[in-house]
Amino acid sequence: MKTRIGILGYGNLGRGTEIAVAAANDMELAAVFTRRDPSSVSILTPNVPVINVDEIEKWTDKIDVLVLCGGSATDLPEQTPRYAKLFNVIDSFDTHARIPEHFASVDAAAKEGGKVGLISAGWDPGLFSLNRVYANAILPDGKDYTFWGKGVSQGHSDAIRRIEGVKNAKQYTIPVDAALDAVRSGANPELTTRQKHTRECFVVLEDGADAAQVEKEIKEMPNYFADYDTIVHFISEEELLTEHAGMAHGGFVFRTGKTGINKENNHIIEYSLKLDSNPEFTTSVLIAYARAVKRLSDEGQTGAKTVLDIPPAYLCEQSGEELRAHFL
Amino acid sequence: MKTRIGILGYGNLGRGTEIAVAAANDMELAAVFTRRDPSSVSILTPNVPVINVDEIEKWTDKIDVLVLCGGSATDLPEQTPRYAKLFNVIDSFDTHARIPEHFASVDAAAKEGGKVGLISAGWDPGLFSLNRVYANAILPDGKDYTFWGKGVSQGHSDAIRRIEGVKNAKQYTIPVDAALDAVRSGANPELTTRQKHTRECFVVLEDGADAAQVEKEIKEMPNYFADYDTIVHFISEEELLTEHAGMAHGGFVFRTGKTGINKENNHIIEYSLKLDSNPEFTTSVLIAYARAVKRLSDEGQTGAKTVLDIPPAYLCEQSGEELRAHFL
Repeated sequence: MKTRIGILGYGNLGRGTEIAVAAANDMELAAVFTRRDPSSVSILTPNVPVINVDEIEKWTDKIDVLVLCGGSATDLPEQTPRYAKLFNVIDSFDTHARIPEHFASVDAAAKEGGKVGLISAGWDPGLFSLNRVYANAILPDGKDYTFWGKGVSQGHSDAIRRIEGVKNAKQYTIPVDAALDAVRSGANPELTTRQKHTRECFVVLEDGADAAQVEKEIKEMPNYFADYDTIVHFISEEELLTEHAGMAHGGFVFRTGKTGINKENNHIIEYSLKLDSNPEFTTSVLIAYARAVKRLSDEGQTGAKTVLDIPPAYLCEQSGEELRAHFL
Repeated sequence: MKTRIGILGYGNLGRGTEIAVAAANDMELAAVFTRRDPSSVSILTPNVPVINVDEIEKWTDKIDVLVLCGGSATDLPEQTPRYAKLFNVIDSFDTHARIPEHFASVDAAAKEGGKVGLISAGWDPGLFSLNRVYANAILPDGKDYTFWGKGVSQGHSDAIRRIEGVKNAKQYTIPVDAALDAVRSGANPELTTRQKHTRECFVVLEDGADAAQVEKEIKEMPNYFADYDTIVHFISEEELLTEHAGMAHGGFVFRTGKTGINKENNHIIEYSLKLDSNPEFTTSVLIAYARAVKRLSDEGQTGAKTVLDIPPAYLCEQSGEELRAHFL
C-alpha cells in the first residue's frame, strides 16, 4: 500500500511537494488542503480533491503524512503543533534561531496525539545541517564554513522593496570565488562577512524616484547590506519579470580539520548544491523524509524529530539488503 | 565515564585510531591487542598496555568498543565475526562486493553475543555511501558519479610490483578534470572508464630490467591498466621512498537529477574529500561511529549495523538540544 500524502498550502512548496510525490513509486497524493476557496485552486494531479482546511479533521484516517507547506514566519509556528496532534507531519521550518522552541511545541503536540512531527527538513536547515554534524563528529579539531548562493534571498529582496521609490526588486546572494578557493586550499582563513558573499540587486524604480538616493539607501542599510560589497542595477519591470523570475539557489558547506600526532595532516570535506529550483529541491527532501516519518510512526515512535535523528536508510524505498548491496 | 576503546592490530589504521581516540574528550584507550610480541610494539599513548591477542578474552569487561584495524582481504572476514561474539566491534571492511556476506556473518555472531557490530565504516564505503543514499532518496530520477583520488591505490601498486623486473612501485589514481567539469555542468555525461580516471605509476626497476618491456606490461595489463590512460615514470628507490611515501587520498561523489512537471529543473549534489592522511581520516570516521556503537549497545540493540542504519546525532558527543541549537 502506498503512503498517502496530504499537502497543506498550495504555493511553490505545495506544488513542489505534489511533483515530488508523483516521482515516488511508493507514494500517492490523497488531498490538498487550502485556506483559499478550493474551487479557485487548480492542481496538477488528476482526481485528487482540493479541500478547505476547515474540513481537515475528517481526513485523519486517510492521510499517512501531512506535508506543511506554509511559511516559517507566521504559518508553521502555529500550524505544525496544531496538526501534529492529528497527523504525522513534516515541515521545512527554517528560522534557525527559533528551532529549539518550535521543536518543543511540536514535540508536546505530537506526543499528545501519538504522532511523529519532523521539523526543519530541506537543505538549510536539512542537508547542510547533516553535513555540519557528520563533519564535526569526524573532525573535532576543525573549522566550519557555510556559503549560500548564487540564489535569490527573499528577505533581502523584501528589504529593498520597503525603500521609498522602489517598485520591485530581486537580490542575489553570491559566494565570493576567492573565499571558496581559500577554504579549499586548506589555509583555514578567517573570513569577514564582506569576503564571503557579494550582494547583487536588480531594482525597478517608481516613476520619478531618485536612483542615486535609492542606491545609497540600499548600500548603507545595516545588517542587510552595509557589511557587504553590494552591486545595484536599475532595470525595467519587464526585465525583472522575464530575466529574474528563476528560483535557482545553492551553496557550500565545508569543514577543514586536522589530525595527527602533531596535527600535521589537514583534511577538507566539501558539500555543495547547485539547484535550478529551490522549492522543488526542498520538497524532494521533504518527501524523502516523509517516507521516514511513516516508518517511525509504524514503529510506534511519537514526538518531534529532526533530520539528525533519522537513519539514512529510512529515507529509501529499498530494503536494507538492497541498500547494502548497491549503495554501500 | 569515558567510552573505553580497544584496538586490534597496530598498523596505519591502529595508529590512526589511537590518535583519533586521543582527540575525543569522551573516549579513552584501554588496550592495544596485537598478534606480534607485545614487547616489540611501541605505542604513542602513555600507560596503556599492549596485549597479545591470545589474551583478549580477559578484557571483555574492560572494553566498550573494539576497533578492528586489520585488512579486508583476509583479516576482517575472520576477525569481525569472531570478536563480535565477545565485544561491540567496528571495522572498515571495504571489499564492496563481499559486504552482504560479511554483514550476515557479523550479524549472526553479534546477535549470539548480545553485541553490536558496525561494519564498513570509513569514507568509501562509509561517507561516500551515505552521500549516495541521501542523494538517491532525494533525487530518484538521476545519475550517480563517483571519482577517486588523487591517491595511491594499494591494489594497483601491488599489481605493478608483481611484474618481473620491478623492484618497487606506487600507483596514483587521478580523476580527470574534464570529466569532473562535465558532471558539474549538469550535462549528465556518459563517461567511459578512460574518461574518468588517469593512472600514474612511479616504478623502481631491478638492476638490468628492460624498462620498455615493463612499461608495456603495465599499460596492457587487463582490468588494472588497459582501459585507462596510464603514465609510467621510472625513478630511483630513494626518490620513491622520499617523494612517494605520503598517504593522501580523496574523491568525489555526485548525483545529478531532475525535477519538475516536465523534468525541466536540474540539480547537482557534490560531495568531496581531500585528505592528507587516508588512514587517519578513516579512523576518525571509525571513532565517530564507535560512539554510536556504544550508544546502540547501551539501548540494548544487537546485531550488525552499517552507517546507513545510524542516526547522525548518534555520532556526536553533544546532546540533541545542543545539536539542534548549534548545527541544525
